[in-house]
Amino acid sequence: MKRHGAPADLAQPQQRDIIMKIGFIGLGAMGHPMARRLLDAGHHLVVYNRTAAKADDLVAMGAVLVETPAAVAWEVDIVFSMMFDDATTQETTFGKDGIAAGLSSKAIHVCCSTVSLAQARRLRDGHAERGQSYVSANVLGRPPAAEAGELFVMAAGSRNALDRLEPVLKCFGPHVFRIGDDPIQANLAKLSLNFMIYSTIEQMAEVFALNEKAGTDPRMIFEVMTGSFYNAPVHKNYGKLMVEHDYDYPGAPVTLGLKDVKMFMDAGGDYGVPLPYASVVRDRLLSAVSAGDADRDFVVLLERVRQESGLK
Amino acid sequence: MKRHGAPADLAQPQQRDIIMKIGFIGLGAMGHPMARRLLDAGHHLVVYNRTAAKADDLVAMGAVLVETPAAVAWEVDIVFSMMFDDATTQETTFGKDGIAAGLSSKAIHVCCSTVSLAQARRLRDGHAERGQSYVSANVLGRPPAAEAGELFVMAAGSRNALDRLEPVLKCFGPHVFRIGDDPIQANLAKLSLNFMIYSTIEQMAEVFALNEKAGTDPRMIFEVMTGSFYNAPVHKNYGKLMVEHDYDYPGAPVTLGLKDVKMFMDAGGDYGVPLPYASVVRDRLLSAVSAGDADRDFVVLLERVRQESGLK
Amino acid sequence: MKRHGAPADLAQPQQRDIIMKIGFIGLGAMGHPMARRLLDAGHHLVVYNRTAAKADDLVAMGAVLVETPAAVAWEVDIVFSMMFDDATTQETTFGKDGIAAGLSSKAIHVCCSTVSLAQARRLRDGHAERGQSYVSANVLGRPPAAEAGELFVMAAGSRNALDRLEPVLKCFGPHVFRIGDDPIQANLAKLSLNFMIYSTIEQMAEVFALNEKAGTDPRMIFEVMTGSFYNAPVHKNYGKLMVEHDYDYPGAPVTLGLKDVKMFMDAGGDYGVPLPYASVVRDRLLSAVSAGDADRDFVVLLERVRQESGLK
Amino acid sequence: MKRHGAPADLAQPQQRDIIMKIGFIGLGAMGHPMARRLLDAGHHLVVYNRTAAKADDLVAMGAVLVETPAAVAWEVDIVFSMMFDDATTQETTFGKDGIAAGLSSKAIHVCCSTVSLAQARRLRDGHAERGQSYVSANVLGRPPAAEAGELFVMAAGSRNALDRLEPVLKCFGPHVFRIGDDPIQANLAKLSLNFMIYSTIEQMAEVFALNEKAGTDPRMIFEVMTGSFYNAPVHKNYGKLMVEHDYDYPGAPVTLGLKDVKMFMDAGGDYGVPLPYASVVRDRLLSAVSAGDADRDFVVLLERVRQESGLK
Repeated sequence: MKRHGAPADLAQPQQRDIIMKIGFIGLGAMGHPMARRLLDAGHHLVVYNRTAAKADDLVAMGAVLVETPAAVAWEVDIVFSMMFDDATTQETTFGKDGIAAGLSSKAIHVCCSTVSLAQARRLRDGHAERGQSYVSANVLGRPPAAEAGELFVMAAGSRNALDRLEPVLKCFGPHVFRIGDDPIQANLAKLSLNFMIYSTIEQMAEVFALNEKAGTDPRMIFEVMTGSFYNAPVHKNYGKLMVEHDYDYPGAPVTLGLKDVKMFMDAGGDYGVPLPYASVVRDRLLSAVSAGDADRDFVVLLERVRQESGLK
Repeated sequence: MKRHGAPADLAQPQQRDIIMKIGFIGLGAMGHPMARRLLDAGHHLVVYNRTAAKADDLVAMGAVLVETPAAVAWEVDIVFSMMFDDATTQETTFGKDGIAAGLSSKAIHVCCSTVSLAQARRLRDGHAERGQSYVSANVLGRPPAAEAGELFVMAAGSRNALDRLEPVLKCFGPHVFRIGDDPIQANLAKLSLNFMIYSTIEQMAEVFALNEKAGTDPRMIFEVMTGSFYNAPVHKNYGKLMVEHDYDYPGAPVTLGLKDVKMFMDAGGDYGVPLPYASVVRDRLLSAVSAGDADRDFVVLLERVRQESGLK
Repeated sequence: MKRHGAPADLAQPQQRDIIMKIGFIGLGAMGHPMARRLLDAGHHLVVYNRTAAKADDLVAMGAVLVETPAAVAWEVDIVFSMMFDDATTQETTFGKDGIAAGLSSKAIHVCCSTVSLAQARRLRDGHAERGQSYVSANVLGRPPAAEAGELFVMAAGSRNALDRLEPVLKCFGPHVFRIGDDPIQANLAKLSLNFMIYSTIEQMAEVFALNEKAGTDPRMIFEVMTGSFYNAPVHKNYGKLMVEHDYDYPGAPVTLGLKDVKMFMDAGGDYGVPLPYASVVRDRLLSAVSAGDADRDFVVLLERVRQESGLK
Repeated sequence: MKRHGAPADLAQPQQRDIIMKIGFIGLGAMGHPMARRLLDAGHHLVVYNRTAAKADDLVAMGAVLVETPAAVAWEVDIVFSMMFDDATTQETTFGKDGIAAGLSSKAIHVCCSTVSLAQARRLRDGHAERGQSYVSANVLGRPPAAEAGELFVMAAGSRNALDRLEPVLKCFGPHVFRIGDDPIQANLAKLSLNFMIYSTIEQMAEVFALNEKAGTDPRMIFEVMTGSFYNAPVHKNYGKLMVEHDYDYPGAPVTLGLKDVKMFMDAGGDYGVPLPYASVVRDRLLSAVSAGDADRDFVVLLERVRQESGLK
């Protein structure tokens, strides 16, 4: 496998020292830059993607493209998967020629997909039945952070597996949080952190609408928020889109928000935890769909709050 | 009036140059350090407090203590008031020997109290009827920030008045946000920013409880939050109290939270703005009162979320 | 005092036997027919109304009109008051020449006004301080029911007072419910029963909107509801207005709904009882105000539910 | 097929005249008495049940028991199915030897099961693909009403099919409501009417708890409700269980309530209709599960309202 020259600043010694054979399945907006980070760190990379062309540049840099998830698993010590949803994750893992069909007893499947807890349990239990190692490692951050190796990684699984994985996971970002022993704990943490985005948007929307109704420019309120105690990225990034009414930013659509919130609420259902804030957000997003905004950025829920308030 | 020596680092030139006669009424946990900041900046200070002894140290540093709010107003160019609630604010301003009774046409009353919008309108309209200048300048921050001159100031009123006040307001903190021309806009901004505290607590409480139910230590979720996109002071300060179940921190009690949320909801009522998140928080705080936690720190609402989830 | 001939069907023996001197203050849409019922039952009636002309027909039938509430109280054994809100109730009772100024130690003030619990306490405590008898007797029903003597009466106060009042209260309707010893219990019951109207409207609105979105005529759903287990007057009366989009029926406006819901929520606040359904209704009604429907019948909240659902 | 003598009062002429061959699949608490009503009306009945013994008495009265759903469908003009949930409905209909495998082009499958809209669509579309007639006919009422022929029937499907079915459906109850042309409209109506049960319980629970907190016996409030405008069966039946704290009535458990509310909310999700009242009920029922009450009657949610209010 021909190696391309990794940039000096990325090739930390401890990662150099332990060069591994790693697979990556799912080269989408997040998966592709994550896979590339592994390559940049000097690892041997085997990839699979339904649309093979998306792997072209990685292959040019030395990755090997194979024809099935099973073929990836067969070749490597660690196989990452980063799929879009429950169905594609299930198919890629346990379908015909799926990861499970090729995974050796020494290898680990690390699923990074944002899936429902029901699916997370299917992954955990399906691998356990086969005597295979499985870890859930969910990430926080958007594609540019994935490219820069600045994702936040939430991993859960057995201590041994996490110990082995830690240096590799650090290719994605310097912070690797060990959430617990049970892989689904990482999935739930991911759903929770995503919920905080939507919930903060609703929170700011109520504040913006009320102050706007009283004649105050929401941008001034945004200045106060982010200039005082509400200056986290979640406030700054989404608040800015909101006060600029920038609803068509190439971000995540209302439908994705609904999917996320539904998975979070279903988790509440599994554990008997009432989540009134999540219900409010769900209703806002449903209302946004009915208003024709299904494909706009989910910050557009501000418009529902504004309309209910008689603005515009 | 005998001057005490202001520390060099506090006596900024522009404040030195414009030494004013300033009054301060209401020397409580916030008012006292704010008054002292004015004294430290070299201003002539006239004070009034119902319990006169609270002014002793300020008087020792050169402040003049007088016997009524009217007497304060009579003496100064600017009179600040920082009272506990609507009733004390109304009495101090428009009661017998109140501020309005002494305020000259050249002076400005600057009310810093967190009051309802109904009270804020009474202040604005009552001064307007008397041809008096009035500004609302609400602050964000706790007593230590007041002592350190690190409050955030939200001021609203006429441009002329704000221009005159700006250097003085900067004694309280470097950030003076001009919210609008109408004083009540500052009051609403203050209620809004306070609401964000309670709302963020509810948001984190739902997340902590759900993850705890799934076996994850809330402290780990707190680490992920504050280590990633939820690292604002509101997350760090309140989240820490929550995961440590530190409900008896000498902070603000549930009853204060209820008062604040009620004022915010009443503002929504005034402007016809539905505020579902505020309603959820109100219900939590009411439940905390019924659970016997009225006097504990308002982060104790986590315990209501935990109980509804069957924890403990 | 000249007696007019009571219709035979109204003059029940037990009421005939105990002819009393009764006062009635507040001859509005509800008060007027209630006062007339007393007259029809053969009682001596003394009345007061701010707009005296509203008493003309009662005077023609034998009632005596006097010039102040105190003058009414002075004359009678029982004085009813039926005012519009807290302020008018307070003024009529404890203001200059108010009921309390004329009420003898043997007489009872029976307040029928729908007031807040705070006002209800002021009535109870104000009379208690003066050593006066006081009962709260709230009624359910609209003006036609008042005319027909078909109101439902919820009374609370001392057993002795209620025993004395019972035959008189039955002039308003055959059902007199004794809610408790403390007058405010009747006020709370009244607020509660009113809340059930608004809450049932929201409940039906969600059902109508969802089925309409699925292509089903809400009138068919209304038929099923009222033809099966949801056939109470609250379903039939308000459901019919809803499915016919009859928002300008000369009923009660959105603003009255808001007032009622606010009083109910404030009662929840007093007792530490979370009321999430009430909060939802409040938000709907606020939204109706913002949509310009403040003066339409409160069933118009269906339009808010429909708009949020993308209907029309 | 031997006929047993139908009681005179049940054998209405028009049903006598049109004796049909009818199948019934699913002889549970509801299905069994419904099947028997068909037999009583003189129809030829073919039945299937997973546990065959449940058909013993029907067979003794003349019904024919066969070994698969397909065998039922093969024999009859109309085949009813009344299964417990989505999965059993799907299996019974489209599984191996399911209804669809035996249904002739002249016969109609009438599904009475309470299923999700997703399942309702699978039924409709699955039959349509096979060119088979399909109607959804959902019923309201408990087993005793099924025995007495007093169910309320909500049917949806093609006009022709409904015309043919109407006399047969009247065996279940005198009221057959035609909800629409699309079978899923009946399913949605059923989910909606069920939601009104849960929602009315929450509504009454808030009222009972608040009045109890104020010292009023909830039984008195129940008397006022059911003695005035809230006297529908939904108020009387569930309200009585609530005020008597009769949570172990052999009714429907919390888990069933959760299933129903989830299906209703999912329907809202399908159509973009916010359903805040449903969310509140869901949270209450989840809380009941966490309190260990999963298997008690769903009116036990009153205890959650009481606990949040600090009662007991």
